[in-house]
Amino acid sequence: MPHYTAPLRDMRFVLFELLKVQDELRALPPYAGLDVETIDAVLEEGAKFASQVIQPLNQVGDREGCTFHGDGVVTAPAGFKDAYAQFVANGWPSVGCDPDFGGQGLPTIVNNRLYEMWNSANQAWLMYAGLSHSAYECLVAFGTPEQKQVYLTKIVSGEWTGTMCLTEPHCGTDLGILKTKAEDNGDGSYALSGTKIFISAGEHDLAENILHLVLARLPGAPAGTKGISLFLVPKFLPDSEGKPGKRNGVKAGSIEHKMGIHGNATCVINLDGATGWLIGEPHKGLAAMFVMMNSARLGVGMQSLGLAEAAHQNAVAYAKDRLQGRAPAGAALPDKPADPIIVHPDVRRMLMTSRAYTEAGRAFTTWTALLIDREHAHPDAAVREDADELMALLTPVVKAFITDNSYETTTLCQQVFGGHGYISEWGMDQFVRDARINMIYEGTNGIQALDLLGRKVLMDGGAKFGRFARLIEGFLKDHAGRADLAEFTGPLAKLLADTARLTAEIGTRAKADPNEVGAASVPYLRIVGHLTYAWMWARMAAVAADRAGEDFYAAKLATARFYYAWLLPETEHQFRAARAGASTLMAIPAGQF
Amino acid sequence: MPHYTAPLRDMRFVLFELLKVQDELRALPPYAGLDVETIDAVLEEGAKFASQVIQPLNQVGDREGCTFHGDGVVTAPAGFKDAYAQFVANGWPSVGCDPDFGGQGLPTIVNNRLYEMWNSANQAWLMYAGLSHSAYECLVAFGTPEQKQVYLTKIVSGEWTGTMCLTEPHCGTDLGILKTKAEDNGDGSYALSGTKIFISAGEHDLAENILHLVLARLPGAPAGTKGISLFLVPKFLPDSEGKPGKRNGVKAGSIEHKMGIHGNATCVINLDGATGWLIGEPHKGLAAMFVMMNSARLGVGMQSLGLAEAAHQNAVAYAKDRLQGRAPAGAALPDKPADPIIVHPDVRRMLMTSRAYTEAGRAFTTWTALLIDREHAHPDAAVREDADELMALLTPVVKAFITDNSYETTTLCQQVFGGHGYISEWGMDQFVRDARINMIYEGTNGIQALDLLGRKVLMDGGAKFGRFARLIEGFLKDHAGRADLAEFTGPLAKLLADTARLTAEIGTRAKADPNEVGAASVPYLRIVGHLTYAWMWARMAAVAADRAGEDFYAAKLATARFYYAWLLPETEHQFRAARAGASTLMAIPAGQF
Repeated sequence: MPHYTAPLRDMRFVLFELLKVQDELRALPPYAGLDVETIDAVLEEGAKFASQVIQPLNQVGDREGCTFHGDGVVTAPAGFKDAYAQFVANGWPSVGCDPDFGGQGLPTIVNNRLYEMWNSANQAWLMYAGLSHSAYECLVAFGTPEQKQVYLTKIVSGEWTGTMCLTEPHCGTDLGILKTKAEDNGDGSYALSGTKIFISAGEHDLAENILHLVLARLPGAPAGTKGISLFLVPKFLPDSEGKPGKRNGVKAGSIEHKMGIHGNATCVINLDGATGWLIGEPHKGLAAMFVMMNSARLGVGMQSLGLAEAAHQNAVAYAKDRLQGRAPAGAALPDKPADPIIVHPDVRRMLMTSRAYTEAGRAFTTWTALLIDREHAHPDAAVREDADELMALLTPVVKAFITDNSYETTTLCQQVFGGHGYISEWGMDQFVRDARINMIYEGTNGIQALDLLGRKVLMDGGAKFGRFARLIEGFLKDHAGRADLAEFTGPLAKLLADTARLTAEIGTRAKADPNEVGAASVPYLRIVGHLTYAWMWARMAAVAADRAGEDFYAAKLATARFYYAWLLPETEHQFRAARAGASTLMAIPAGQF
Repeated sequence: MPHYTAPLRDMRFVLFELLKVQDELRALPPYAGLDVETIDAVLEEGAKFASQVIQPLNQVGDREGCTFHGDGVVTAPAGFKDAYAQFVANGWPSVGCDPDFGGQGLPTIVNNRLYEMWNSANQAWLMYAGLSHSAYECLVAFGTPEQKQVYLTKIVSGEWTGTMCLTEPHCGTDLGILKTKAEDNGDGSYALSGTKIFISAGEHDLAENILHLVLARLPGAPAGTKGISLFLVPKFLPDSEGKPGKRNGVKAGSIEHKMGIHGNATCVINLDGATGWLIGEPHKGLAAMFVMMNSARLGVGMQSLGLAEAAHQNAVAYAKDRLQGRAPAGAALPDKPADPIIVHPDVRRMLMTSRAYTEAGRAFTTWTALLIDREHAHPDAAVREDADELMALLTPVVKAFITDNSYETTTLCQQVFGGHGYISEWGMDQFVRDARINMIYEGTNGIQALDLLGRKVLMDGGAKFGRFARLIEGFLKDHAGRADLAEFTGPLAKLLADTARLTAEIGTRAKADPNEVGAASVPYLRIVGHLTYAWMWARMAAVAADRAGEDFYAAKLATARFYYAWLLPETEHQFRAARAGASTLMAIPAGQF
């Protein structure tokens, strides 16, 4: 059975040594009083919840799955409900929420690290709470004062959970063709009818009420994405005291059998004249939903980061424990029948790959969390705008780069176990199966790549990319005199220049053939992802180099070197692919496939 | 529900146009009379068996799995037994077997294409028969005349099936430490005791008897791999008429719950004084088992090739059918609400990747099958030796390169389905889950890479690699005047030269540090795999270029160009990794992981 211990030492390194959040927070009024000790204490408590309460339920949830009892009733696996009750009792749902609505007002840098831990422990379970937090973001931005009073406080407390109802049987990516209808009831409410599919946490027994955030069309709405509105549709209509009252006409029709995340109920949701209320303006629902969607996309990156860390810890433990074969240079444990497999260079390659990707992902997502905190709380509008622009650029990178890497690394960690990795008892295959969904939902990774290159980079003529490039240039300038870091800063500077040149090339080519953006997009996202990680590793190396005599920092430097030697050169492949051009993809007519 | 149609057109291209097997077979006496029409007819019948009999059982088998009833009794999923009875009644088990033992004496080039089809249709089901064929190879080589009479004929007819019993709880890769004991009964038989795990098709209800080929130690055997002997241990001891008689002390203790291949029973096999007979000489069991193992490794490559083709076909069908979004250059089907997703460049990238890898894999495995046929049947000893040496070199490439590629491509094909790819109903996740085992069993892909670089390439000073290189040089020389092929022959020549240089470098480095071989091995195998596929694609392009006005050949050329533009450049990454050196992997002491 897998184990998990939160990597608090590495989290502290990233927070307090790499990013020096203790200094950053002083510039953000809502968090200016938060000290290192408090952050430490919260993370330690969160770590206990992860390893003691929800991690032991992870395999149980996978084996048992959710149960559909008919008539819209769904129950989560054994233990999930009790764990959620503890979660609410401990106040965890409110950690990252605004005190105006009952939240504890901790910054995203703390909340994100908690989410990493909890995802390591049990992604399927955490999704019940995670989607609620995305619904929170949407209601904070677009809810009416009354909606905030009635619904938001319940989301913050965790008493009620939330969902995102976008996909329909005939449309997922292409929401412009969705069919669910909303008709005006004449009393401020609407009657919604239609079928939604793939609704995560769509029905369950963890909370007393569920708030569905539903995309639908008003009568006479314009065709396409400009005719979509967003509605709040509770499972139970709140009574006059704000408690769950009459059952609403929104019910689970069935649950899906799927590759992984068995502990989370993926529901078909039937709306049969369900009562709902408009969130934000009519026909502007997609923009409102995207507040929730962007939050969810960042959450998906955290899911995969969590899985990768958990898989890595278990692979390391197995590689140290499993005796098999001898070290190439001679027996490491001559008194034993064989050496632990960690002596083998190829086992190290697998462990170093997962280590390098996971530690870079932790640094990256902590830094983006800091951007979110600046975006929300910095007094200077220019700083807020800068953070906002950077987050727009990097959200698809967090979502796609981390989830692709984690599919690779959970697979490698499974491989370390040999045949045992394929046997359910060991739990390694669950990490892979759970990680697989993260590349698909909340916009497939192909869609993320299109979003990055087409919308975020090219649409503003490279302005957002330029902001990001200037940060890296600043780092390079600050460390120009450090000969000991040249092994990192040299390749980083080259990659930055090459990426800028590639961006310009694609921009030019795209004017001649609109297929060029789609053709180059996935390799381009891999390149930008590596640019980000190469920068993160160079930054970590710069901190570590000053204390290289200590084990922890020596290992950081070694991992940075591994990243630059083994993983970063993937960009050489991706530059070639990004330049191959659309004609190499589109040469065969569709009919001849 | 997934569908499958055998790609007969492409198989004919490879057999009769690319490899011209009709000419090759004339030089091989046992097959000299075999004509194109007969091969065609066999493939067509095999294709019907694939799509009509076993493909419809693939999802059933995954859902239902095998059942352990206690006391060693295991049943396969519904329908598996009947399908196997048809398989035997149709004579399929004997197709590739020697007529001396009741076989039909068809060459491996035919049998391999049948195995591709049947694996596309149902890998878990085919494993019951596939392992029997590997046992056949071992008994042909090492069985006594009596063993051949009693057992081999039953394997050829398919009435009895076979297994490979190597792994034990404490050892898989490192067979030198295995513990199962064999004691002399004094009557020519031995009593075997021990526990074997991960025994595919170890117990089932498809056949009336099962022959276990078991590795064990004789009393006083030398330690390590030089003290291992191979035994034949039947489930039922044959009676005086050769029919299943007394139940032997070899029983399934349980079956594993695993990530995929649910339809095949993966058993713990307990030997409790089971009666067995020595195969080959005492203490030389590992060499005998390796005859079976090499056959099985090639079979694993075919498993993944089959899965990749099936996943590809379904992804293509979905991409043509699913309407979502619009083509970047403007609506392709303006009368419909959206265009089929095959219009999108990134969807093409995924389909072209699976197409290019699958078609190259088909060419590669048909060519290696031809080598096997030469090895068995060519009258000239030098030709046989050449084929034997090439197969020794390329067996780990067939096993690891194809299975790694197919994990990637089944994952991409699943991705084409978006959220539907994650839902079991569509069957795409089964291809991925089934493909995953192929990277692990019969020697993990890391072990294959060590076998390639350490044993096959470096141990004979590059002699085997030189044979392979000369074949490619011959092709390049033959096509040196073809300017129209320069886009392929240029990069191929460069890759060959670069690979030869890398091989020499690693050879030198390995003398200074034994860790260097293990460090470079996986990147090296990827490079040799691409060298093979680049050669295959150049050869296919050479054939296709002469008929480029016809759709089939134009598509071949386009796929060759895609391969060279998008997939082959992975070697740039792998060369960097192969040269990174062991120190980048081993820098962190094991205790600090």
